[in-house]
Amino acid sequence: MIKVGIIGATGYAGQELVRLIEQHPKAETVTLTSQSYAGESYDKVYSGYAHKSYVCEEEDIEKMADECDVIFLALPHGVASKKVNNDILNKVKIIDLGADFRLQDIEVYEKWYTTHYSKDILPEAVYGLCEINRDKIKGKRIVGNPGCYTTCSILSLYPLVKEKMIDLSSIIIDAKSGATGAGRGLSLPNHYCELNESVKAYKIASHRHTPEIEEQLSYAAGEKVVLSFTPHLIPMDRGILATCYALLNNNYSYADIRRAYEKYYDNEYFIRLTREGVFPETKWVKGSNFVDIGFTIDERTGRVIVIGAIDNLFKGAAGQAVQNMNILFGLEEKTGLDYIPIFPA
Amino acid sequence: MIKVGIIGATGYAGQELVRLIEQHPKAETVTLTSQSYAGESYDKVYSGYAHKSYVCEEEDIEKMADECDVIFLALPHGVASKKVNNDILNKVKIIDLGADFRLQDIEVYEKWYTTHYSKDILPEAVYGLCEINRDKIKGKRIVGNPGCYTTCSILSLYPLVKEKMIDLSSIIIDAKSGATGAGRGLSLPNHYCELNESVKAYKIASHRHTPEIEEQLSYAAGEKVVLSFTPHLIPMDRGILATCYALLNNNYSYADIRRAYEKYYDNEYFIRLTREGVFPETKWVKGSNFVDIGFTIDERTGRVIVIGAIDNLFKGAAGQAVQNMNILFGLEEKTGLDYIPIFPA
Amino acid sequence: MIKVGIIGATGYAGQELVRLIEQHPKAETVTLTSQSYAGESYDKVYSGYAHKSYVCEEEDIEKMADECDVIFLALPHGVASKKVNNDILNKVKIIDLGADFRLQDIEVYEKWYTTHYSKDILPEAVYGLCEINRDKIKGKRIVGNPGCYTTCSILSLYPLVKEKMIDLSSIIIDAKSGATGAGRGLSLPNHYCELNESVKAYKIASHRHTPEIEEQLSYAAGEKVVLSFTPHLIPMDRGILATCYALLNNNYSYADIRRAYEKYYDNEYFIRLTREGVFPETKWVKGSNFVDIGFTIDERTGRVIVIGAIDNLFKGAAGQAVQNMNILFGLEEKTGLDYIPIFPA
Amino acid sequence: MIKVGIIGATGYAGQELVRLIEQHPKAETVTLTSQSYAGESYDKVYSGYAHKSYVCEEEDIEKMADECDVIFLALPHGVASKKVNNDILNKVKIIDLGADFRLQDIEVYEKWYTTHYSKDILPEAVYGLCEINRDKIKGKRIVGNPGCYTTCSILSLYPLVKEKMIDLSSIIIDAKSGATGAGRGLSLPNHYCELNESVKAYKIASHRHTPEIEEQLSYAAGEKVVLSFTPHLIPMDRGILATCYALLNNNYSYADIRRAYEKYYDNEYFIRLTREGVFPETKWVKGSNFVDIGFTIDERTGRVIVIGAIDNLFKGAAGQAVQNMNILFGLEEKTGLDYIPIFPA
Repeated sequence: MIKVGIIGATGYAGQELVRLIEQHPKAETVTLTSQSYAGESYDKVYSGYAHKSYVCEEEDIEKMADECDVIFLALPHGVASKKVNNDILNKVKIIDLGADFRLQDIEVYEKWYTTHYSKDILPEAVYGLCEINRDKIKGKRIVGNPGCYTTCSILSLYPLVKEKMIDLSSIIIDAKSGATGAGRGLSLPNHYCELNESVKAYKIASHRHTPEIEEQLSYAAGEKVVLSFTPHLIPMDRGILATCYALLNNNYSYADIRRAYEKYYDNEYFIRLTREGVFPETKWVKGSNFVDIGFTIDERTGRVIVIGAIDNLFKGAAGQAVQNMNILFGLEEKTGLDYIPIFPA
Repeated sequence: MIKVGIIGATGYAGQELVRLIEQHPKAETVTLTSQSYAGESYDKVYSGYAHKSYVCEEEDIEKMADECDVIFLALPHGVASKKVNNDILNKVKIIDLGADFRLQDIEVYEKWYTTHYSKDILPEAVYGLCEINRDKIKGKRIVGNPGCYTTCSILSLYPLVKEKMIDLSSIIIDAKSGATGAGRGLSLPNHYCELNESVKAYKIASHRHTPEIEEQLSYAAGEKVVLSFTPHLIPMDRGILATCYALLNNNYSYADIRRAYEKYYDNEYFIRLTREGVFPETKWVKGSNFVDIGFTIDERTGRVIVIGAIDNLFKGAAGQAVQNMNILFGLEEKTGLDYIPIFPA
Repeated sequence: MIKVGIIGATGYAGQELVRLIEQHPKAETVTLTSQSYAGESYDKVYSGYAHKSYVCEEEDIEKMADECDVIFLALPHGVASKKVNNDILNKVKIIDLGADFRLQDIEVYEKWYTTHYSKDILPEAVYGLCEINRDKIKGKRIVGNPGCYTTCSILSLYPLVKEKMIDLSSIIIDAKSGATGAGRGLSLPNHYCELNESVKAYKIASHRHTPEIEEQLSYAAGEKVVLSFTPHLIPMDRGILATCYALLNNNYSYADIRRAYEKYYDNEYFIRLTREGVFPETKWVKGSNFVDIGFTIDERTGRVIVIGAIDNLFKGAAGQAVQNMNILFGLEEKTGLDYIPIFPA
Repeated sequence: MIKVGIIGATGYAGQELVRLIEQHPKAETVTLTSQSYAGESYDKVYSGYAHKSYVCEEEDIEKMADECDVIFLALPHGVASKKVNNDILNKVKIIDLGADFRLQDIEVYEKWYTTHYSKDILPEAVYGLCEINRDKIKGKRIVGNPGCYTTCSILSLYPLVKEKMIDLSSIIIDAKSGATGAGRGLSLPNHYCELNESVKAYKIASHRHTPEIEEQLSYAAGEKVVLSFTPHLIPMDRGILATCYALLNNNYSYADIRRAYEKYYDNEYFIRLTREGVFPETKWVKGSNFVDIGFTIDERTGRVIVIGAIDNLFKGAAGQAVQNMNILFGLEEKTGLDYIPIFPA
């Protein structure tokens, strides 16, 4: 059994990790920590665990490094980069669900986020978008687990960018997320009556997932990509839908574009291309690690419109983190992740 | 008192009309009709009217034309154009909430909808977007009341188009609507458990409000506008949010763009520009006739992003229809429409 | 115009009051105060008021007493009883939306709540359940506006208690409330993702509305009533449904019971008895001052089951407060309150 | 592997069964049938199965009896009793999720439902409430899988009834269910905008789960139990909460009552008693087979109030059906059912 430590286990993504590891046939959580609830039994925080006996511990990453095979970090940005160092990495694999090890361009990181405290380690971190970077992940000591919006957005556009089928300057991603994306921290906008029965955009032209999407698509394109990304908050718990717009570089047919997607994704278990004329809905991936992708050509404007859907807590956070663990430890990638979406839920 | 007839009073837009007219100080509903519920008392269809005594009647537009000052039509497209003729219009004002009298380009209408049965009358119909066409509406016999998505989209972009500040070929409108937009007719996708807790796009690159938005923006631009429009369904009852993207023609500042909006909307009671840095949310217009508009400049991409919000049943349907009635009958425009948004609701 | 002051205008009930007074033809808000937002413009707290120019002021009840005809208090319990005194009451009418002036039994108040600081004034306060206490309210200086659950529960059971048709020891009220009932204060259980898609009971056998219901039903019965009351939280914004159970004292027919309800409520505009076989739903009273009541006899068990529905922010708080104002100032009771329920919303 | 057939696989309970069997380590679905979608691939009905290749077949129970080890029936009442006969039962185990084999009292069945067509078989059917009837289920050919409300209600009250701690004539069950309980069939009340943001009671004093609860509690009591049962519809997808009231026969303490629950449930994996002062919420059992039960004593009225919570599609339907399969085939009861509740979802 892979011995797992989870730091930050009482946020939504942390809890999803606890759940997935609990049900994983080859891994078990040996330590889970929480800053807010240290010393409390876990089921006082999440009553769904009443039949289990987890206790929230104080974080002690040194000790965990000795006892665990892998540590998942589910922490605010800027915190992980302070905790990780070479000694830790010599003892344990790190999968960071935060932003600190996702961007290789340190200037970009520090512009959009904050000071980075592990600049020496950053270069060896791999961006854990499994379907794209699988081979680079193997053997690594540290994985920067992708953001939720970014996972959905990059996978939706990757084949088109890689195959140079779209005008890179024309990309617009209009994304919609359920409220778990906003986390468990209290704030008036996330109070039930404030969020319910309404929709809004937020962090327009300024959301931190923008440079992450751009960096990865730039690698794919072999040139710098700059794009517009607008997140919206939807009155539902889980799910991200990304509606992506771009001008086609040629008079491509549906079949041409489909061929590009199939070239990259045909063997990807967790990526499902929808039938022609059918488009993703977040409910069809809820509680699963799937990424559903569909597209159409807007003949009148010469644009392709691609829709991607994921469960933000699953493929967009904890599920992909487990997928990365599976890769790191040589397990079949879908081990412990092969869930049919739960519906209606 | 203005004597009002409502044909199609048991759909969601029809019912909202009944409600608004009931509370209107200068108008009263004398006849309301329903194909599905003829003969039934209205509160069997909508129990909220239990203290009233409306009865659904069989539609008889000839009789209504004799008895009413204005008839509102809330009917599926293609039906209104069969019912209206010159004799009717000689006796009564018509405000059509459907699509039949919105598009002046008959070819476009018949391509996107169906055969038009009142081609002779169409030229005199006015597009009832009150803030833009107020002067043209006065004195008309027939008004094509704008669609919900179109009202929100056109008003969000009008000043930029009119002032030639944006690249017309770059316009993308990504719109989100509550479920009342899908109407009261039964269908599996609108069943509670199918729609709840999920988000999806639909009629991608093919929604019928596209040509309506294009026709009106083309008038404003003085040239043909072709754009991308993508509607999404949100798990909530009311509200439309339109997120509009366009390339700026120049290096405009926030103030430049704001000036354009103020030029057209400063005296418009029902259009509210949000403060800089604040963006519309549908909850802040719910149950009201307001259109909230906010925007930002995405410096990195040279785009302006405009967000508009309306209540789809109110400003997007029944409220605007009443606003048109007020114009036609020389009342102050906000008569019977001056509601503070209801919140939380 | 009646000059209105509102203390605590930024809570949900306070805001609903602002809205109703804004639209009231005979009253206007001259001062609104907020502890949390003093000095801020009101539309920064509630963007729906962007076209208005209210500013939140520091509370100064002395000054308000000089300038206003009536002051509404929307404050936590225990605060109002400190603010009100004989001098204030000599200058201005007080309508308290909190609990401090609802219970006449001071021992009961202090057991369920806290120390009472206006014991001298309490005896002259009237319990503002308009349909029952209308005549006692007229001419009073201070009104204790009833609680939301209590309004719905008492009105649902009053005729049966008054007519001695039920076994008083058998009363059980199982109530369900939307989340606005929990207020705008931040707390984890009212965070969107925690409350959404779940239902729970809370304060079981210990909710403070219990003694309030009991005191009023005891007046009606002419003897002490003790009952079980269980509130539940429902994932929706507004509305209370009370499902009330009691053993019938006799083999009454539906008509017998209906006659009792009609005896007390036939002339009550805001109380609507549903048709036989039809039962209240909260949606049919939303955004209105109506109380819908329906009942059935469970022949097998000898019980009557009465269902009542109100909008908790309207008839359960702000609407009833305005109704009390109308009574105090000699206006027709439904002035400014005669709204058709808004649906779907 | 146990070979499974599912008749009625496209309803909500049927689909949940398909999902659970798909993920069950010792069972596999060999045939699934659907009246409405015969011939269609299953993922056209439920897109969540896009990576699978199930096809909906025409029902042929004879053929299925030859090919399967167990057949689950998820059919409207009155249909199952026509399909099952002795020949079928000689070849295959039957687990019926409908009502036809739940009630042993045929008069009661025919009064509340319809004509029964397998009166000869009924006596050997066992009521599949696993925690109560485990030993009776083993070796049986046919199981009547309990209803959703009934599972929750009976398990909530069983120890109190069995131990004669409550007045049997005083039982009232006020239950709240999510909308999946209403099924996938189209009807206006289950349309999104009609059900959303509202709560109502329905089938008051006349819901068909009443006699089912009564029959089982009567067995436990050793005498006839008659009770009041009121179901309510809640705007959420999944979950049932039962709030149960009864007069205590004695001056029992919390500990006394807890002891009774522990006597029956201490070794029950799927029944979790909440800590004193903590009460069940449906979210904490969602997506799991757990039954959470909590209670308090209302000292003032002498009543005990018991709250039970289940996931209506899981323990209330498909999960319990699989639990019954596990019992019938000698597997550990929690095989394929040991899920942590999914949250937030």
